[in-house]
Amino acid sequence: MLIECVPNVSEGRRPEIVNGMASAIRAIPGVRLLDFSSDPSHNRSVFTLAGDADGVERAVLALFERATAEVDLRTHKGEHPRLGAVDVVPFVPIEGVTMAECVALAKRVGAEVASRFQIPVYLYEDASANPARKNLEDIRRGEFEGLAAKMATAGWTPDFGPSAPHPSAGASVIGARMPLIAYNINLATDRLDVAKKIAAAIRHSTGGYRFVKAMGIKLEDRGIVQVSMNLTNFEKTPIFRVFETVKREAERYGVAVLESEIVGLVPSAALNAAAEFYLQIEGFKADQVLENKLRS
Amino acid sequence: MLIECVPNVSEGRRPEIVNGMASAIRAIPGVRLLDFSSDPSHNRSVFTLAGDADGVERAVLALFERATAEVDLRTHKGEHPRLGAVDVVPFVPIEGVTMAECVALAKRVGAEVASRFQIPVYLYEDASANPARKNLEDIRRGEFEGLAAKMATAGWTPDFGPSAPHPSAGASVIGARMPLIAYNINLATDRLDVAKKIAAAIRHSTGGYRFVKAMGIKLEDRGIVQVSMNLTNFEKTPIFRVFETVKREAERYGVAVLESEIVGLVPSAALNAAAEFYLQIEGFKADQVLENKLRS
Repeated sequence: MLIECVPNVSEGRRPEIVNGMASAIRAIPGVRLLDFSSDPSHNRSVFTLAGDADGVERAVLALFERATAEVDLRTHKGEHPRLGAVDVVPFVPIEGVTMAECVALAKRVGAEVASRFQIPVYLYEDASANPARKNLEDIRRGEFEGLAAKMATAGWTPDFGPSAPHPSAGASVIGARMPLIAYNINLATDRLDVAKKIAAAIRHSTGGYRFVKAMGIKLEDRGIVQVSMNLTNFEKTPIFRVFETVKREAERYGVAVLESEIVGLVPSAALNAAAEFYLQIEGFKADQVLENKLRS
Repeated sequence: MLIECVPNVSEGRRPEIVNGMASAIRAIPGVRLLDFSSDPSHNRSVFTLAGDADGVERAVLALFERATAEVDLRTHKGEHPRLGAVDVVPFVPIEGVTMAECVALAKRVGAEVASRFQIPVYLYEDASANPARKNLEDIRRGEFEGLAAKMATAGWTPDFGPSAPHPSAGASVIGARMPLIAYNINLATDRLDVAKKIAAAIRHSTGGYRFVKAMGIKLEDRGIVQVSMNLTNFEKTPIFRVFETVKREAERYGVAVLESEIVGLVPSAALNAAAEFYLQIEGFKADQVLENKLRS
């Protein structure tokens, strides 16, 4: 079983504090800290860890212990919106684990955080049963400064914990979601209007694919434009379908696809699905991938 | 480091002997027995194991010990050509290991087999520096029954060990090769001549791609034909190039590709290369695959 977890913490300016959090995670057996980075202007750090359910649970609780002791939202400033010391904690199913199991884990961790640290916890994304409280942006709107007032209004009782913010640590948003794929397609043109029109055609918010967020941007140094995307569920909206649609829409303007790029990590299954599609492979099973077989 | 090893043993009719060989492999630390199967008409068994260099070396030596004690080629009958009790031993680089390291391992194991069991050893494929002794078929021609005479002729001194066959265990062929991919493309036609012409166009032996073996066959029950292939080096002759060529050649006869299929295991890198090609992904690195990163 392999679960990824990407906690975001509201501290990105004091390296000694962030390093202490990293050490606390590394000390937990059954989990690996794959990466962590801080953004001083956001005053925020992102940790990427992976392991089994017990390992990631214990690592997240260790992180809450540190962050609750070290971060005070009453004096915290930064460009990035935030609600809590440990702001958001997504659990992501990678291998040998279902979304349902990640949802159960998010609820277990949420209950434990609430009872151990007296921090209110909101469930989000797949862990939330409430449509008004699925999107992180909706839950976080108003930020820490508006949290006490928001929690007093109807519909904002937290899923776990006290009905008022923790004085210094605010509230936390914990949930489960699919892996994100940051995917860009570069077009052989400098026409920003074409990139923007294509982005509008494919993104969910303006009528496109359900699990695509997209915008058109200019790559000034290269004199070309890019459709910059987040694919939020590669099983239901696969990479190849998005690529083929962008290519077809670009043709409409006489524009060719120059190249695409994957930024950061991509699950093996997302690439395999593209190979299956283009090679028209029938009856393929994940355990035919040699590496999967070797590690099963 | 992950090396696959697929020893073929000349015993496929006595399950208790084959199971004893499997147990001997399983008892070795640092190696896993992924699969083994016996073919009684071939009177031959194939073991698939994987591990680090030390693990696979020790497992292969344990297998030689069993096979040399239990198999006597003087009384062995079967449909499959064979030269020795342990007939052929390929080492296959999978991850974090080079072909050169697998060649070095094949030579080390070959020398050890020769000195410990007095069995002559021929190196093959990437481990052989002699063009006349690269192909398994060339080395094995004449089989056990013709081996003593063959070894007495010029050019057939073994790479390691005595210059005459082991009385009961014959000789062994040990080497290193890339993973094989068994890949078939089904055509939406019942015209066997089309499948045969396309097979001839793409296979190495008749002028096609260097690392393709291919034949055209009829799938009687489905009323269609198939180009049935072995891809012997997916890095140098990638799946997508073969697929696109077959598709283009089929168009020439007004025939469409119905589907393709991968039989058995395929390295993750072979599928990723297809995704990169069709999605035009630039600058992709293997450690962007989440699973690779998690396990590095």
